[in-house]
Amino acid sequence: MARYKLTLEYDGGPFVGWQRQDNGPSVQAALEAAVFRFCGERTTVQGAGRTDTGVHASGQVAHVDIEKTTDATTVAKALNAHMKPAPIAVLAAEAVGQDFHARFSATGRRYLYRILCRPSRPALLRGRVWWVPQTLDPAALQAGADRLIGHHDFSSFRASECQAASPEKTLDALRIESRDRGLDGLEIRVHAAARSFLHHQVRNMVGTLRLVGQGKWSPEQVTRALQAKERRAAGPTAPAEGLYLTEVTY
Amino acid sequence: MARYKLTLEYDGGPFVGWQRQDNGPSVQAALEAAVFRFCGERTTVQGAGRTDTGVHASGQVAHVDIEKTTDATTVAKALNAHMKPAPIAVLAAEAVGQDFHARFSATGRRYLYRILCRPSRPALLRGRVWWVPQTLDPAALQAGADRLIGHHDFSSFRASECQAASPEKTLDALRIESRDRGLDGLEIRVHAAARSFLHHQVRNMVGTLRLVGQGKWSPEQVTRALQAKERRAAGPTAPAEGLYLTEVTY
Repeated sequence: MARYKLTLEYDGGPFVGWQRQDNGPSVQAALEAAVFRFCGERTTVQGAGRTDTGVHASGQVAHVDIEKTTDATTVAKALNAHMKPAPIAVLAAEAVGQDFHARFSATGRRYLYRILCRPSRPALLRGRVWWVPQTLDPAALQAGADRLIGHHDFSSFRASECQAASPEKTLDALRIESRDRGLDGLEIRVHAAARSFLHHQVRNMVGTLRLVGQGKWSPEQVTRALQAKERRAAGPTAPAEGLYLTEVTY
Repeated sequence: MARYKLTLEYDGGPFVGWQRQDNGPSVQAALEAAVFRFCGERTTVQGAGRTDTGVHASGQVAHVDIEKTTDATTVAKALNAHMKPAPIAVLAAEAVGQDFHARFSATGRRYLYRILCRPSRPALLRGRVWWVPQTLDPAALQAGADRLIGHHDFSSFRASECQAASPEKTLDALRIESRDRGLDGLEIRVHAAARSFLHHQVRNMVGTLRLVGQGKWSPEQVTRALQAKERRAAGPTAPAEGLYLTEVTY
């Protein structure tokens, strides 16, 4: 038996999320079905991040154990062939030791959140960005984001169903990038990095920062929301379609 | 009656193309239906470029005459509201004189062609790029492209159904841009500019350049294909899904 580390890209749109569930297609189940079609083995594919319904990935990492004698290149090709036409791509496969665990060995995760600010709905980027019909101020967004960086109790940005043992996390980076594309709109990219995140943490931070970017909140109100340590003190949850798991480090 | 210039973005995927046709939904018909729902007027919306089935736009220009007393901002908002959920967005509307014609007044058109080179199919960019499973050499692509810039008889790159009076065109620019995104793949962007193009000209040029980028053809063979002045001398037609009409100038 050999263990393979897989780096994955997927469009979260058609899936109920990473995790296998009874109510619809999941990325995990699609991968497990592809493994079965490749080698006839029933396995569990372990993912680094359990992305929610509709959340995308350009750098999710998973691992899988395969009994059949094969190699990493063959595994990547075979899974890609057997997953057609699901919008999931194995970008890389690598043989790793039995001590590698996609979730428990991870030391860092990076997420990207994309916002498109313009009066008209997105046509080419629909399902790939959060459409915000007003313009947002990138400097104000960064000033708000700066209030969240560091080690904090993030209870105000935690989904009620979050199963993490502690609400304390260290947010290593929360960087705002903006690209003014003229008539195509202003695209805001929020880059977040941490060892791990609470459930909905990135989407709740982005939903709160939007208030600052719109001028409805001051950056100081972000600090007060954080200090309140209760979910209702922060802003609404930004939608899943703007969120991407971009990298997992080990 | 007032004439409005519209700047449009659309996902070409679900459409039979710009032009109204009996065999499926067109961008033109979707706009005309939205105009009717807005003001009850049956009009013809004239487009600058008659994009083919599946071809996208981020800067198509059209014009429409409306009898109802209104203004450009209202026209943009109303058409966007009435086109839902079609993936078409009016990015801008502007009142123009009766001498403005989206197609005949145009002095330049720009197209973008996106190629994604990597072993696995695109998941996030599916339907938005031409997937090429080999890597292409950007310098070779540019060397091939340089052979096509200028005033030429482009018969070798012209679809058999092309209705242009002459196969002679002046290609002002054909620039290769490459972005290496690591595991996400190498993205090649071909930027083409001319006063006007022959039917399938950009896709036929890109399909030919791919041969150069792969090392199957030398740049000199592009010159020979051009000089042959017959379609079969050049390479295959690149697929519609990688092509975007990005700008029309007046």
